[in-house]
Amino acid sequence: MWTFNNFPAEKVRAKYGFSPDKAWLDKVRLSSVRLTEGCSASFVSSEGLVLTNHHCASTCIQQISSARKNYSANGFYARTEGEEVRCPEQEANVLIGITDVTSQLVEATKGMADKAANDARKAGIARIEKACATSDRIRCEVVPLYGGGVYDLYKYQRYQDVRLVFAPEFDIAFFGGDPDNFMFPRYDLDLTFLRIYENGKPLRTGHYFPVSRSGPKVEELVFVSGNPGSTNRRNTVSMLETQRDLITFRKLLYLAEYRGLLTEFQTRGEEPKRISQDALFTVENSLKAYTGEEEALLDERFFARKRGEEREFRKRVADDPALERKYGKSWDEIAAAEEKHRQLWLAYQFVEKLYGFQSDLYRHARRLVRMAGEYPKPNGERLAEYTDARRPEMRQALLSAAPIYPEFETETLTWSLTKLREALGPDDPFIRKLFADRSPREVATGAVRGTALRDVAARKKLMEGGKAALGASHDPMIELAELVDPYAREIRKKMEDEVESALAINEENLAKARFAVYGKSIYPDATFTLRLTYGQVKGWEERGRAVPPFTNLGGAFERATGRFPFALPESWLRAKSKLNLQTPFNFVTTNDIIGGNSGSPVIDRNAELVGLIFDGNIHSLGGDYWFDSALNRAVAVDSAAILEALDKVYGAGRVLEELRRQ
Amino acid sequence: MWTFNNFPAEKVRAKYGFSPDKAWLDKVRLSSVRLTEGCSASFVSSEGLVLTNHHCASTCIQQISSARKNYSANGFYARTEGEEVRCPEQEANVLIGITDVTSQLVEATKGMADKAANDARKAGIARIEKACATSDRIRCEVVPLYGGGVYDLYKYQRYQDVRLVFAPEFDIAFFGGDPDNFMFPRYDLDLTFLRIYENGKPLRTGHYFPVSRSGPKVEELVFVSGNPGSTNRRNTVSMLETQRDLITFRKLLYLAEYRGLLTEFQTRGEEPKRISQDALFTVENSLKAYTGEEEALLDERFFARKRGEEREFRKRVADDPALERKYGKSWDEIAAAEEKHRQLWLAYQFVEKLYGFQSDLYRHARRLVRMAGEYPKPNGERLAEYTDARRPEMRQALLSAAPIYPEFETETLTWSLTKLREALGPDDPFIRKLFADRSPREVATGAVRGTALRDVAARKKLMEGGKAALGASHDPMIELAELVDPYAREIRKKMEDEVESALAINEENLAKARFAVYGKSIYPDATFTLRLTYGQVKGWEERGRAVPPFTNLGGAFERATGRFPFALPESWLRAKSKLNLQTPFNFVTTNDIIGGNSGSPVIDRNAELVGLIFDGNIHSLGGDYWFDSALNRAVAVDSAAILEALDKVYGAGRVLEELRRQ
Repeated sequence: MWTFNNFPAEKVRAKYGFSPDKAWLDKVRLSSVRLTEGCSASFVSSEGLVLTNHHCASTCIQQISSARKNYSANGFYARTEGEEVRCPEQEANVLIGITDVTSQLVEATKGMADKAANDARKAGIARIEKACATSDRIRCEVVPLYGGGVYDLYKYQRYQDVRLVFAPEFDIAFFGGDPDNFMFPRYDLDLTFLRIYENGKPLRTGHYFPVSRSGPKVEELVFVSGNPGSTNRRNTVSMLETQRDLITFRKLLYLAEYRGLLTEFQTRGEEPKRISQDALFTVENSLKAYTGEEEALLDERFFARKRGEEREFRKRVADDPALERKYGKSWDEIAAAEEKHRQLWLAYQFVEKLYGFQSDLYRHARRLVRMAGEYPKPNGERLAEYTDARRPEMRQALLSAAPIYPEFETETLTWSLTKLREALGPDDPFIRKLFADRSPREVATGAVRGTALRDVAARKKLMEGGKAALGASHDPMIELAELVDPYAREIRKKMEDEVESALAINEENLAKARFAVYGKSIYPDATFTLRLTYGQVKGWEERGRAVPPFTNLGGAFERATGRFPFALPESWLRAKSKLNLQTPFNFVTTNDIIGGNSGSPVIDRNAELVGLIFDGNIHSLGGDYWFDSALNRAVAVDSAAILEALDKVYGAGRVLEELRRQ
Repeated sequence: MWTFNNFPAEKVRAKYGFSPDKAWLDKVRLSSVRLTEGCSASFVSSEGLVLTNHHCASTCIQQISSARKNYSANGFYARTEGEEVRCPEQEANVLIGITDVTSQLVEATKGMADKAANDARKAGIARIEKACATSDRIRCEVVPLYGGGVYDLYKYQRYQDVRLVFAPEFDIAFFGGDPDNFMFPRYDLDLTFLRIYENGKPLRTGHYFPVSRSGPKVEELVFVSGNPGSTNRRNTVSMLETQRDLITFRKLLYLAEYRGLLTEFQTRGEEPKRISQDALFTVENSLKAYTGEEEALLDERFFARKRGEEREFRKRVADDPALERKYGKSWDEIAAAEEKHRQLWLAYQFVEKLYGFQSDLYRHARRLVRMAGEYPKPNGERLAEYTDARRPEMRQALLSAAPIYPEFETETLTWSLTKLREALGPDDPFIRKLFADRSPREVATGAVRGTALRDVAARKKLMEGGKAALGASHDPMIELAELVDPYAREIRKKMEDEVESALAINEENLAKARFAVYGKSIYPDATFTLRLTYGQVKGWEERGRAVPPFTNLGGAFERATGRFPFALPESWLRAKSKLNLQTPFNFVTTNDIIGGNSGSPVIDRNAELVGLIFDGNIHSLGGDYWFDSALNRAVAVDSAAILEALDKVYGAGRVLEELRRQ
């Protein structure tokens, strides 16, 4: 997961005889796209056509569907430019510059204690980002790398007009469903084509990846350019214990119960099934991923290894008096912060991070309440997501035209309020204030029934009216958010002042110690920023049996049972005789990826797109904590399958011609 | 948790100045009742009246309810003997004898290797139990104590005609609901009166506990006589790791999801809510208990302590050449068996232990299939639950008149089949055979719709017809059970041959080593057999604050919000002015109890019943692994509250007079 400004080209040359030069790296960077909801993508034409995963666009696909037009079930294909439909909440970014701002932030926090330094750092970041973001079309983010050893300013072109061009049916995009998720062999056409517009016209893109007709070969060198979300490979043992014993454990219990609720909600009928599908998919995906992560953490051998590495690192620091003096206490200070972290986490997760408020309406209400509270403050003193540089995405989220379904909102809010009461206990003063004599269902029903926030225009008016308009509205969802907000802010402030600030300074110290002891020969933990990894198309050994690196289209027909999640769509059954069943369908590579890389292009040394990342194998789930090159594999759709399906199954001539023109 | 044949009377005398003699112990034992579904109880009159918890009778209460008579919501009171209603599946046992059979079993397995010894031990147990159970009214069980260091034969009087006499409303029996479960202060009237019948008449009981009018005093010495289900305090570290990393972890994920499903099923309407309430209660209770257990296991300090104890014990064994030769390898052999255990557990739990088949109809089908397969075999070669000594409870379960609801069965079977497929994976040969091209819903719906097993007479006929009748029936639920049975047996046999047998011999060895090193001064792990514990009525300190040992009736009115689970029943609101609100309601004691002790009498030195155990506090959840006398508390209903409520709230004169007559 190398950053583009520290790519080890020489290493790659030594191993594979190919050395990416600056021009190659620039072209790849400018052809790569970040989807801000948590995915990656890439340009595949000069007319703004973008390729990503179906599961990266599934929220959009559901949002533009209705009871009568179910694009998730039936797929979507815009036969003309005019038929391309705008996604209500999608934003796309292209990385146009990286600047090191470490010294500015070091200067701003010099000699300060933890909490003051944390506040000053935040103000400094807000200032740097604001100066960089000269218009709404530029997005700027200061990114702490190596746990704060380095701060780089990432500057993006920002695009908020993203439209849906083509999506296959859910049944082939996610063929095998939850049972096959994170598994291989696999047979998924997990793709969607989007198009970026600028000023109402398709974006002219100077850089893009031509789509290869043949896909990659076995053992071929391939690169993945994308935005891995986060990894925790440098975490100390005490941080890992918090994850294992509290955070991942509690999240799993929450998600498992939510999954059961959604599963049963789906049986209410076709429309309830449709409107809850994206939520269920997301929950199931997270649940499977967290389960794998927790199992990695529960593995005694893994933990012994982490303990051993930490012991060795501490010893190396202790052996050098200068290092010991500067950094020797960091582990214990992190452990002390983790104690606090454990005490605060449940309330933080349920109140501030919204585990207790599963509702789009509530999220809108909170945005309005916080906008009215934050925007009048000086930029450097606001909650991070309300600084000036962040206004465009906040506005886009609030004014999203995505439909909201009260029946579903009532169920999920009722349930999550019940979980909130369970987490904090019925005798907690905040819980007593929130519920008084009311049940979770009464609170939820009252707020969902009485609110006007389903209406975009109403939200816009409240946004423009600020505090006065909110007060006058007597909207029950707003009132709920206002009731919660002081406690949410209090717990967040505690978390920032007592945990985050101590972690920031001590992780920064450990980063410096690590540079001193081990050098900069490793890449930083993932930060949902653009990274480039190299690897090979290659299978692996599973309990003594070789898993081959490729599947083909014919395998999908062999695996099909006709029943979800192993049902092929009608379109595929009809097209079977026309298809070349030998066409490679999915393949695996040794590239180091993680959640956030979904939708990343797999490219060859000519910067042609040979595949589309959509998953990792089951061993990739430990990748949060370490990369095991023997077993961890990225899973991709072969470009040959993409072209074959567009042609023979979907007759998507307009897309195909656009790809071929390049 | 002392056995009645090894009670440390001298220790009690030294500490409290009271020494229970043989007559006292016999009286207490014969006044104590075991409810075979997993609870404890006691006689409180000479006419077979039995006191237990509401949650111990809730399955019965739901089974005899209907859409029009909801005894769970509204309570139940038989104004005459004729109105007492028989529970379809309840069995009650009174312990009438304990005999040491260790030497017989040691003789039977002498010089044999693990697997052969395991088979021989089972055959020996079947033989001993059959010889002991001279009629259907005698139940005999060989109980391995100290992990097999001692085998005792427990002989019970068996009663299968148990009738409901009185139950309060669910809302007061379980006031505070899941949020207050395992918590204190508490305000629950968690009781039910049952009556045991013999030959159609109330049982004449020679021994019973008079119910105290005043309840216990602070710091008073009290005893709890009941049947703790199981503890794992002697487990080795490798056994605990299997619990922590696999078994409890996976059970939690399963139960959390099931809870979500049931929660949403409840919203379908009043009748779905009623029929799923007992299942939801059970799941929530297990979930909270397992969560506490898992948190104990995840506590690094706890694990370090267990590791330390094991190191110390191993060292003591290693230091004695004779002990080392005989027992020194046991830990490593257990660890090797645990490796196997981990490989087999998922399939075993989902297929043999029915996590994959949540359905009463399926359970009936499996009973029929296995009865037909097992009963023709020699007694010593059968699956343990199909030996001759076990016939009466198998017959009772199969011929239960409890209603079965197809709508609910379809949902729970569909869901659990989905979990089964998830656990084993869609490519597992058994899964492929079970589902072929069908979805879990198709399998479930087909079997539930087509089966005749809802009808008791149909089940009886199939039972009597044996294999031939099953084959001729073409009943789809029977066919499903027949399809599953060979694999279920295969995985069970592997578990018995490769795990259980090695654990049995090595746990037995460790028990002997423990006797040699530490003596017999500790009580054995719980085995759902009668135990007597002594302790005091006493609060505890929680984060520096004292928790007083008693609550009173007035506290319930203060806590009430009018909304479930904090809603008091109408009957209580109406009676408020008549009640003495100072009456003690619930209290805590230092007695060492665990699940299975629910419904146990709390008695004073005069063998008067002063309370009724119904829960433990949150610290009791670690009690599976060690007993922490500073924090672990048992929670009981005060006998004074029982009498006050029967009188002033329920006007239950018939019960009250029967209690007062004693």
